[in-house]
Amino acid sequence: MNNAPSPEVKQFIHEHRVGRMATADTNGRPHLIPFCYAYCDPFLYMALDRKSKQVPIQRLQRVQNIMSNPKVAILIDDYLEDWTRLAFVLLRGQAELISEGTEHEYAITLLKRKYHQYKKMGIDQCPVIKITISSYSTWKENATPDLNF
Amino acid sequence: MNNAPSPEVKQFIHEHRVGRMATADTNGRPHLIPFCYAYCDPFLYMALDRKSKQVPIQRLQRVQNIMSNPKVAILIDDYLEDWTRLAFVLLRGQAELISEGTEHEYAITLLKRKYHQYKKMGIDQCPVIKITISSYSTWKENATPDLNF
Repeated sequence: MNNAPSPEVKQFIHEHRVGRMATADTNGRPHLIPFCYAYCDPFLYMALDRKSKQVPIQRLQRVQNIMSNPKVAILIDDYLEDWTRLAFVLLRGQAELISEGTEHEYAITLLKRKYHQYKKMGIDQCPVIKITISSYSTWKENATPDLNF
Repeated sequence: MNNAPSPEVKQFIHEHRVGRMATADTNGRPHLIPFCYAYCDPFLYMALDRKSKQVPIQRLQRVQNIMSNPKVAILIDDYLEDWTRLAFVLLRGQAELISEGTEHEYAITLLKRKYHQYKKMGIDQCPVIKITISSYSTWKENATPDLNF
């Protein structure tokens, strides 16, 4: 486990375009979604950009889980048919919602800079899930494991 | 939520090569790993194929979590830059370990049939995580949501 990410780990997170986030409800039932993100160590930001138009955000399972249990795990990885090249980064942290203010504006700016798709979507008012990363773990096939995944 | 998967959903699961599985420990701390799988409705099988050589499987976080809390969530999705084509399948179920017997042999056979990589790896004796799927949920961008992810 590594709480000070190396430049390579930071680059890996910056360059990837999608992550998967696990949350759990108060009964220990896990939930899982894919998401786009902006990264600014030690924070990760994701916009509640789609369903939020159709469903009150409080009804989203991920939001309900975060409100009752802010612990999250985030996986950033690629699948490749060459299994000798498999690698992933696992982040652990705490999630919270931010809906306005300087940090919210900054998160939206980062998201629009990374994803051209957001530029047309009018996400300026979308709430943002902010993850404060508490640990970074990495795994590579054929490397000596430092953690027991 | 759909407990009887459509042929399209079954095909989506069969055709994909990787999933991500979330588990949670007894403190509600989520854990997350990528995995390869064989699917035979309503079961999903994954081999404990790599770390199991280096680390006793009981020390793997996923195994510890499953032993104390068998609830899992599994996400099967692709990331595409064309966000109008995004889709995913979310499975919920219960996990258990199987290490021998007819079902274990069958799971290993399915895994070798799907992944040529396994044919050289000598996985016949590897324990298998068996997921009994209790619900299938699907999401597509631009489709009316049936669930609140």
